Amino acid sequence: MSSKALAIIAGVGPGTGASIARRFAKSYSVVLLARNPASYDPVVQEIKASGGQAIGISTDVADGNSVNSTFDQIAKQFPSSPLAAAIFNPSGGFSKKPFLELNEEEFSQALEFQAKGGFHFARRTLPLLLEAKDKISYPPTLIFTGATASVKGSAQFATFATGKFALRALAQSLAREFGPQGVHVSHSIIDGVIDIARTKGYTFEHEDAKLSPDAIADSYWYLHTQPRTTFAFELDLRPYIEKW
Amino acid sequence: MSSKALAIIAGVGPGTGASIARRFAKSYSVVLLARNPASYDPVVQEIKASGGQAIGISTDVADGNSVNSTFDQIAKQFPSSPLAAAIFNPSGGFSKKPFLELNEEEFSQALEFQAKGGFHFARRTLPLLLEAKDKISYPPTLIFTGATASVKGSAQFATFATGKFALRALAQSLAREFGPQGVHVSHSIIDGVIDIARTKGYTFEHEDAKLSPDAIADSYWYLHTQPRTTFAFELDLRPYIEKW
Amino acid sequence: MSSKALAIIAGVGPGTGASIARRFAKSYSVVLLARNPASYDPVVQEIKASGGQAIGISTDVADGNSVNSTFDQIAKQFPSSPLAAAIFNPSGGFSKKPFLELNEEEFSQALEFQAKGGFHFARRTLPLLLEAKDKISYPPTLIFTGATASVKGSAQFATFATGKFALRALAQSLAREFGPQGVHVSHSIIDGVIDIARTKGYTFEHEDAKLSPDAIADSYWYLHTQPRTTFAFELDLRPYIEKW
Amino acid sequence: MSSKALAIIAGVGPGTGASIARRFAKSYSVVLLARNPASYDPVVQEIKASGGQAIGISTDVADGNSVNSTFDQIAKQFPSSPLAAAIFNPSGGFSKKPFLELNEEEFSQALEFQAKGGFHFARRTLPLLLEAKDKISYPPTLIFTGATASVKGSAQFATFATGKFALRALAQSLAREFGPQGVHVSHSIIDGVIDIARTKGYTFEHEDAKLSPDAIADSYWYLHTQPRTTFAFELDLRPYIEKW
Repeated sequence: MSSKALAIIAGVGPGTGASIARRFAKSYSVVLLARNPASYDPVVQEIKASGGQAIGISTDVADGNSVNSTFDQIAKQFPSSPLAAAIFNPSGGFSKKPFLELNEEEFSQALEFQAKGGFHFARRTLPLLLEAKDKISYPPTLIFTGATASVKGSAQFATFATGKFALRALAQSLAREFGPQGVHVSHSIIDGVIDIARTKGYTFEHEDAKLSPDAIADSYWYLHTQPRTTFAFELDLRPYIEKW
Repeated sequence: MSSKALAIIAGVGPGTGASIARRFAKSYSVVLLARNPASYDPVVQEIKASGGQAIGISTDVADGNSVNSTFDQIAKQFPSSPLAAAIFNPSGGFSKKPFLELNEEEFSQALEFQAKGGFHFARRTLPLLLEAKDKISYPPTLIFTGATASVKGSAQFATFATGKFALRALAQSLAREFGPQGVHVSHSIIDGVIDIARTKGYTFEHEDAKLSPDAIADSYWYLHTQPRTTFAFELDLRPYIEKW
Repeated sequence: MSSKALAIIAGVGPGTGASIARRFAKSYSVVLLARNPASYDPVVQEIKASGGQAIGISTDVADGNSVNSTFDQIAKQFPSSPLAAAIFNPSGGFSKKPFLELNEEEFSQALEFQAKGGFHFARRTLPLLLEAKDKISYPPTLIFTGATASVKGSAQFATFATGKFALRALAQSLAREFGPQGVHVSHSIIDGVIDIARTKGYTFEHEDAKLSPDAIADSYWYLHTQPRTTFAFELDLRPYIEKW
Repeated sequence: MSSKALAIIAGVGPGTGASIARRFAKSYSVVLLARNPASYDPVVQEIKASGGQAIGISTDVADGNSVNSTFDQIAKQFPSSPLAAAIFNPSGGFSKKPFLELNEEEFSQALEFQAKGGFHFARRTLPLLLEAKDKISYPPTLIFTGATASVKGSAQFATFATGKFALRALAQSLAREFGPQGVHVSHSIIDGVIDIARTKGYTFEHEDAKLSPDAIADSYWYLHTQPRTTFAFELDLRPYIEKW
């Protein structure tokens, strides 16, 4: 394949991940990661059909070996493509449950997908982003998707909040370590219901009450284009009617 | 003058305010407010020279009568122009001084310029922004400029921090009240030295160590273009090498 | 009067201020400040009746002259009493109102009582606290009373939130400047309804749903007794059933 | 052994844990948990020598089986002792290292000790605390020890910060779920160097520059004695000269 710059998006389902993939595919070849090909295949097809370059690779971000094998494959397929952007967006670990009903495996799910997943993803993308610095138009960018639970540990959300708080800590630490090396590390707090197939049934008194995945993707693209003089670290996104 | 939509920028000097004015002048007629015509005149001339529409009005944001008279004048000059964006960006009240050496007037400066200034500005712009809702392309937007001192009260910064904390409180309260009415209220935290004439002498070990006023202006424009499904409230902007 | 150490409490009504006064009167002579003698007289009488030393002085904390005259009077009455603790606890400026219905005077009330009041009070107490350092058993202490509105600008709370955010900024700045000089500056966030005469009518599903003013006073006393190796800056206090 | 109420302290070494154990042993039988008996044996002996009741149990908080076996043993040894307080204080997972030099095991250490450790400890103590409610003098209390890294992800601290952020998320979630059930859940942020054997060599320009473990223990005891009308969730503790 070409040496057009790359964007890698981890966590591509029918929602935000797909919109991010479509948005970044306007400028880059995109690599879509999800556990299940069914999650990324339609998006890959759609991007290719509209003239973009995209591949999907089945990856379990919580599993270091899986992530390593994915990145080895990417290196083979795109030997000379600089990595312009890496987006960490997996949804794994969301749950609401009384604390005393959680077993260790359930409690650990968000830590595995979010915190360890973030670690595996960052460890493989950061060296590529550092290398890409002088080969691409914008500062190489690593964005983590957060949630309300990134900054608030609500009752019965111990699982998701521990994972999302940990991911935010990781993002902050990486921003402070790799920002001065020219990599733009950002964290977005998605605070509200996203408008995707799964949430079609959620109705609200007001229209436009759900976050638009395309608008989230536009925000990520905007973060990517910021010059290094003026990096945003954190962006909170919510619908106009959201209570917060 | 025409009924092109308006943007009003309070606090226009040679730095961020001027960049914001230039950026918004690409789409709107802009009204520039500053205490001293010397602050806005060059920007007004520059915008007009490049084909844009701009006027400046001498205004002391800390003085309710001055703000009222300014908005009465705007209403006369632009009787049918919807207000698309209002940016509150005055720098008044910055000071560093041992607390016990402050007199009441010095202590109150940031409260006057930032908190009361924000009040006067919001009171006159919000009704216009609410009215503009269905007449402009993007959600009507009110943006407040914050600083490091908006979230951290450092030693010897009691004056500036009280003003900037208060302004952030105002922004949050307005976002929660007027967001659901369709007005996008945002607050940006400018964390670092801005690259303007006054800071030319500040040198850093690394290049690009100062915030670009044009990039700040681009971020404000980006906030303005977000759809109401996906509003950002707070954006922190800093140079890549900034310690935080 | 004796040279027993002093505690000065600004903002003494029938609630938290009275409890703080009673608690600190167990160890110190207490000076109670309120605009209206009716606010402090019953507490002064009660403390004296139980063997303590107390006086009240009518003071408007928002008015620098009033505060100065009060401290001049204190200096005359207690010429050799070191100041062990100063508590800033005025309630002025609470209001809930749609933003566009606020006039400047209403908007400014919390800025006057909380921010400027805090300034006036700190300016006169800090020199006394610094002087007292080696003359009292515990580190000299300056405590500011905050509220939910100190960290959250809710809709229609622009007035109170600007005042309380500003007061928290002041407290942070003073803690960072005067902590290293041995003065313990603290800020408490009172998050809930306080159990006082005025709130008797507020009923809740659960018992003990209101904050106990005596328990708040105990917390303030606890802060006062912390050694300088181990100062707490911020303490959030709420009833067990409070949603937050 | 007697049916005196119990306090269980996880993470007892020569520092804060030992001080907490001594403080709570003034009122309760104490159970000290650490991986290595060498960590708790001297404290157990000291408490017993001064007339208190104490036992130590080797426990790896990161290992659910180890924690379960410990609590089974506690249930046997203290069949009728209500659990008054549980303190989670393990130090595991502290490290400073460039991110790209971390392997998965190193990265995961703080997640294991802090986040999963906190989960295992909370899961076994909360049912006992709920049961104890009407049998003890103060509200049953669960306190988690945090650090600067609980609220700031510094460069090269990805490991410790992810663990400590996650633990804070857990504490928040539990406070919101179990507070209304009468259990006082708290989180303390220890911000500075603690004065223990290991830090004897750290010298500072000023005296009293290190946190006193006994003063931290006093603060934990103070939290424990708060009535349910007036619970503190978060307490930040630092030496007077600390920069923050």
